[in-house]
This record gives sequence, structure tokens and C-alpha cells, in this order.
Amino acid sequence: VPVTVVLVRPTRQGNIGAAARAMANMGLDRLVLVEPAAPIGDEARAFAFGAGHVLESARRVGSLAEALADQERVVGTSVVRSREIATRVVTAKELPAKLAGDSPTALVFGPESSGLTTEELTHCGLIVHIPSSNVQPSLNLAQAVMVVVYELYQAAITTTDLEQLTLPELASQEEVEGLLGHAHELLAAAGFARDSSYTGVQRDLRALAARSALSPHEVKVLRGICRRLGHALARREIGDS
Amino acid sequence: VPVTVVLVRPTRQGNIGAAARAMANMGLDRLVLVEPAAPIGDEARAFAFGAGHVLESARRVGSLAEALADQERVVGTSVVRSREIATRVVTAKELPAKLAGDSPTALVFGPESSGLTTEELTHCGLIVHIPSSNVQPSLNLAQAVMVVVYELYQAAITTTDLEQLTLPELASQEEVEGLLGHAHELLAAAGFARDSSYTGVQRDLRALAARSALSPHEVKVLRGICRRLGHALARREIGDS
Repeated sequence: VPVTVVLVRPTRQGNIGAAARAMANMGLDRLVLVEPAAPIGDEARAFAFGAGHVLESARRVGSLAEALADQERVVGTSVVRSREIATRVVTAKELPAKLAGDSPTALVFGPESSGLTTEELTHCGLIVHIPSSNVQPSLNLAQAVMVVVYELYQAAITTTDLEQLTLPELASQEEVEGLLGHAHELLAAAGFARDSSYTGVQRDLRALAARSALSPHEVKVLRGICRRLGHALARREIGDS
Repeated sequence: VPVTVVLVRPTRQGNIGAAARAMANMGLDRLVLVEPAAPIGDEARAFAFGAGHVLESARRVGSLAEALADQERVVGTSVVRSREIATRVVTAKELPAKLAGDSPTALVFGPESSGLTTEELTHCGLIVHIPSSNVQPSLNLAQAVMVVVYELYQAAITTTDLEQLTLPELASQEEVEGLLGHAHELLAAAGFARDSSYTGVQRDLRALAARSALSPHEVKVLRGICRRLGHALARREIGDS
């Protein structure tokens, strides 16, 4: 989805910069400022961090209508849950599914203190709502931008990206059995195997090993520990005899 | 899930305040600061907006271990996707499902510029990753806090009590530290601690213990093994003399 973020009458340049950074984090770079009350100065650039290019190319316009002229879908944000707009309200989580296809889409955020006006909300085909605590429901402007663009980006990236990310290298069952056998030898050498509780201990160790999803490296480290302890015990025995 | 947010060595008070606001937005109020480089002053309070109560009650501690003492689950955040931690990495979206039940849980965030150290990550049973654009992957600290607590809150308001059926009993961080200390004594007695590879072994053991979500029973069993092996080594030594 080609997405443009539209900030209506933002008053703090730190928020404009932080919104730009959030956009860049989530792969977006088209920013439009409607009647911004704050300039884009040093503070905005500091908050933008590595997203200076988003600030530099931001478009400044005089009205919301002008900002939306070349858009096909308009999504507003509101904490209001009035009956009037209830039919168009979706949560941030529900939004990506509503935006399938590749129609140019504007995400419109209101000023820090007051949000979008009722008139401005009438431009919006969808209203996105971020469920939050009743104790302190009001999100910072840039935080609200982050949540919405985060949801869109997560939906857009392919599952293969995620699979590559979380692909763990796991030890084979054979390696795990080798480790458990090694631990058994060590505990037997220490006289533990004759203990009445030993069967339970073996069972617990096996369950723990199975649950821990050991890597080949970890199996090697744990076998190294068994070997060192085994040698230490054996040295003592040779010393005894 | 009772969740505590832990900020390790935060350097900008604006970020501390913005993180507090994000927490309040998503129904959280327990904040711990580990060796904060920034004071909690006017700037932090301005960014906290309606979340002054979170800042006022924030606990300041001198080490990560102290921050985690009464926690049962520890979730770190990292942009690193090394093979070493791959088995423990989940995305922010996957996190809520991993945190079913009501074990006290810490969400640990590193300093703005550098993130958590490799050593600090070994305290973390899970590493949460926020997929972001390669162009500008680095999220602002408070934005990262928002994304993670947002996901937990959205899951909490939609899940039912059914998920608590599979509630596992987890060892506290204090119990896990006791076990790691006991293992260290044993390996030191066996002469392993003098080895050049030993630091790496310790790191691997800590990461493994953190990831395995040990039960109090398992900690007891593993300490029993340490004790038996320790006795066996000591007997030999007495036999030597």
C-alpha cells in the first residue's frame, strides 16, 4: 500500500521529527504537513535521527483538502468513539486487512491537544482507533503514528522474512541423547546413580533438555562441562589408588 | 501478566518520560531505572504528560541483577539477530502468546545508542525483536517501549482466562542466580574456572538457564546434582591428603 502520513496543524517540532523517524522505521517516506504551527528546525531534525530525508521531502500545504487531493483512501485517527463515526471505526490491528490492494492511502493525524475536528473526520472513510487504558488514554502524536505505521508494516512484510529471523539451529535428538548419556556416566561416577531418587532426576533432566531446544553449541558446552568434571573426579580416584 | 518495564542506563530524560507515558497508555505503572544517566527533571515530566505517577514511583537500582531479583520472566529487546540468540528471539507480535499466565515479567530495554550488552542479554529468557525497515531500523527508545507494551495490552484486552489453564510455575531470578552461583563453585572446584574458555561457558549457561523457564523443582534437582558432584570431588580431595 502506498501510504502518506498527513499531520494536521502539529504544534511541536519534536513530534514532527519523531513521527518522521517512526515512518522511516516502518518503511515510509511520504509526509505532508497541513498548516504546521511548528517550523522544521534543529529540534525536529534531532528527533528525526536517521530520517532526515523524510523531513527534507515533507510537503507543506494549506488545507486538509489539498493534502488529500491525490489520495484514494483516507484514514483518520480519533480517540472519539461517538455514535456518529462508530460504523467507520476499526482498531489499529484491524486496519491492515481493510487496506488490501494498492490504492494511494493517507493516514491523517490531528493536532496534539485536540485531535481532528468533526469536519475533518468527515473526509475520512475509515477511523482508526488505538485501544488504550482509561487511566491515561491519550497517546503522544508520534507514538500514535508509530503504532499505526507499525501495524501496516508488520502486515506488509512477508512471513519468510520472519521465518529467517527466528530460524533456530537445533541440536539433533542424537546429540541430545549423547549429552544425557554423558551426564549419566558422570553422575554414576559420583555415586549418584545408586540413589533411590536417581530415576526421577534422570526423568527431570530429559524433560528439561527436550523443552530447552538446545543448540548444537550448547550441547557441546554442556558435554565439555561433563568431561571436565569427569576428569576432575577421575584424577582424584587415580590419586587415591 | 504483571509487567515491569526496566530501562537500562537511559541517557535522555525525555525518553524516560515518554516511556512512562506509553506505559500508562497501555495500563502499566511499574518502572525501574538501572543506573540512569539522566535525572528525572522537568523535561521527563513534560514528556510523561498524564503519567507523572509512573515517574514518581519509578525505582532506581544499581544493577540489572537487582532490577530482576523478584521477576520470574525476563524479556530483553535487541536489534541483534545473531545466531547465538536466535533460539530465543520472537517478534513483538509473537510476544503476548509467549507470556500467558501471571508470572511477574520484566521487559528490559537498553541505552539509546548501544542497546543491551551481550552479557545483559544472557539474563533474558526471551528476546523481543521489532521488525523494521533496513533503511532506518533503529527505533527511538520510547517508541520501542510503546510497540511492545501496545502489543501486550492489545492481547490482554482480547484474551480470556482460558489461557491461564496452562500456567507454569517458574523459579524466581533469585533462585536461578543461586543455581548459577552453585554451578560456578562446582566448576571452580574442578579447576575449570581458570580456563580461558570459562567466561564463554558461563555466558552460555546463563543464557540457557534464562531461556529454559526453569521451575522451582528443576532448580532444586539441578542444585542437588551440583551438591552431589561437589561432595564427590571433596571426598576425593580429603582422600588425597
